[in-house]
Amino acid sequence: MTSRTQTTITPPVMEAYSWIADKDFSNLPLINVSQAAPVDPPPAPLVAHMVSVIQEDDTHLYGPVLGMPALRSEIAKQWGSAYGGTVTPAQVGITSGCNQAFSAAIAMLCGEGDEVLLPTPFYFNHKMWLDMAGVDAVALPCSGDMIPDPTVAATLITHRTRAIVLVTPNNPCGVEYPAEAVLAFYQLAKSHGIAVIIDETYRDFHSKSGAPHELFKQPYWEETLIQLYSFSKAYRLTGHRVGAVVASEIRMAEIEKFLDTIAICPNQLGQKAALWGMQNLGGWLANERLEILARRQAIIDHFPIMADKGWELLGVGAYFAYLKHPYAISSDQLAKKLVDDAAILTLPGTMFVPASDESGKSQIRIAFANINVDGIKVLFDRIAQVTQ
Amino acid sequence: MTSRTQTTITPPVMEAYSWIADKDFSNLPLINVSQAAPVDPPPAPLVAHMVSVIQEDDTHLYGPVLGMPALRSEIAKQWGSAYGGTVTPAQVGITSGCNQAFSAAIAMLCGEGDEVLLPTPFYFNHKMWLDMAGVDAVALPCSGDMIPDPTVAATLITHRTRAIVLVTPNNPCGVEYPAEAVLAFYQLAKSHGIAVIIDETYRDFHSKSGAPHELFKQPYWEETLIQLYSFSKAYRLTGHRVGAVVASEIRMAEIEKFLDTIAICPNQLGQKAALWGMQNLGGWLANERLEILARRQAIIDHFPIMADKGWELLGVGAYFAYLKHPYAISSDQLAKKLVDDAAILTLPGTMFVPASDESGKSQIRIAFANINVDGIKVLFDRIAQVTQ
Repeated sequence: MTSRTQTTITPPVMEAYSWIADKDFSNLPLINVSQAAPVDPPPAPLVAHMVSVIQEDDTHLYGPVLGMPALRSEIAKQWGSAYGGTVTPAQVGITSGCNQAFSAAIAMLCGEGDEVLLPTPFYFNHKMWLDMAGVDAVALPCSGDMIPDPTVAATLITHRTRAIVLVTPNNPCGVEYPAEAVLAFYQLAKSHGIAVIIDETYRDFHSKSGAPHELFKQPYWEETLIQLYSFSKAYRLTGHRVGAVVASEIRMAEIEKFLDTIAICPNQLGQKAALWGMQNLGGWLANERLEILARRQAIIDHFPIMADKGWELLGVGAYFAYLKHPYAISSDQLAKKLVDDAAILTLPGTMFVPASDESGKSQIRIAFANINVDGIKVLFDRIAQVTQ
Repeated sequence: MTSRTQTTITPPVMEAYSWIADKDFSNLPLINVSQAAPVDPPPAPLVAHMVSVIQEDDTHLYGPVLGMPALRSEIAKQWGSAYGGTVTPAQVGITSGCNQAFSAAIAMLCGEGDEVLLPTPFYFNHKMWLDMAGVDAVALPCSGDMIPDPTVAATLITHRTRAIVLVTPNNPCGVEYPAEAVLAFYQLAKSHGIAVIIDETYRDFHSKSGAPHELFKQPYWEETLIQLYSFSKAYRLTGHRVGAVVASEIRMAEIEKFLDTIAICPNQLGQKAALWGMQNLGGWLANERLEILARRQAIIDHFPIMADKGWELLGVGAYFAYLKHPYAISSDQLAKKLVDDAAILTLPGTMFVPASDESGKSQIRIAFANINVDGIKVLFDRIAQVTQ
């Protein structure tokens, strides 16, 4: 039998990093807009808090599989006010990052040969896990505004479909799904007795203030909704691996089996850091959001540099801009050319679509949150000079 | 389709903890010998090192999927001298704990419907992952000395078998598999072109000094051998989740896909702590081993208290004693009775065998590393007073 890992692709970020290995960027410093990751450490008060809690004994010991009770409670409380619904601590589970939250949700919902609707372009780790879980990732193609269409989704649901996956703000496309679209997907899922998995890793950088959707206000939301979250971006904790999954208590008991077996528990220090961040860094995070929104605006403001060369901006928001390029070559070749000719590391659209989907060949993702407003102009100037 | 998590059981440790929830142990303090976990924090110099590295920026950022290069190199180097073979850094991967190393190894080797030979009593998280991975855990029953028999294993291998799992020193039985037995399993696996997965989480507490087996000395060991390791017990880092997998480079590339998708990378602080421990705590760990060996000896020395009541010691070593009880009731009922009548939390043998295997009903596991030499006598005195 083909092993689980053999059913899927090589990790895209690691592949991209292989393009820059052994290359010399001393003349022109590399601009790395490949992986969505803060490049700065957490704010100093949070680091100071971590120094303090590292000296608490229980930081070094196993904790509950589903995470620290205080962190689960804080999420439940803050979600209640952020989304205007009721979330209980028992409906919250802490994971070692948001990828693990997705993996756990799928393992809880699906068996071999089941199907999940996955809007494309997709976040590649979602596709990779579905492959490895023996689940058929049914492509729900986005075009135009890069927002998936619930009426198209309705035609793809079969007796094997277990869930619809939404990522908003979207990775890789940057677009924010309108609350009405999110609700329409929820209602579609509910009417078929399947789940909606909504990955809100980039929620804290949404351009609109207030709740980004109304799903937690729906009666018995827990029967349909599974929400995923990450602490990596909000508090710059990527190296600590802390995420969360929100779902019904019944589902959480299933998720606990998976997390126990692949992790035993999330690391304690990361959880304490996340809790402190939630309780103390609200103002700081609000400023972080404004900074990211300023970078988003810089993408829009400077885009004429690119448009003049035939590029199109398909989507922009949260950490990402998703672009259509004007070159005759495929995006995977272009990405390597951008490394060699302009010292820019991006991820090609081919990494975000099924192998059979040609659209990815003309697309490229830029994780612009990694660079500041001035850097965005430099980025575009450099790209604009790359010839066919 | 039954979902992946629905194919397996509730996490045993979480279930056991539910037996003590809401109970009052103020008269008689609870002796918790359920989960194998150090109850003390890491040694002070290691905690001081962690305080120091928490102030390094890269502690907070993503690292490579397969772990910190310096830690992979250190493992390769120390393994070379400990086992007398050659291990390269590229043959080492860092995981978020040893459970994750096992999960990754199985995902790399097996697809739906494949088979893995699992000596019973088994470590329950191994069985749970095989269930969730759609892999048939073929029971290889141990009896008498609790060491599995390669000649019995040979009769169980089919065209679907992908691996034989060995845990030595064993969890739950405590026994150390003789080097000859380990080699015989390796040769059996090699002759069938399948893998041997050897979980050496408790290696640092082996009663014999020197290499516990000769597998890394075998020519082309990497074609057959997959070794798993944990930093949790050696340096008291359970709350930081750091483990390792050693395998061929080709297999490591497959393992990388799995780890990328469920974890992105191991947390950085835990990796830095593990590296510092390996480089600086050799003498400290040697003393830890002597302390655990003293506790092991106390189990043997005080066992007459138990033997007088009809108990048998099936195995003892590393962190565990595995016992046969003389009561008419099943071990899962006895475990609850030990909580209520003697304030002792153990795990019943029913958690370590397939549901169809009656032997677990008369067995119980004690994680004696959690208590000191004096505590072991108190434990036995309390158990001996529990009546039918």
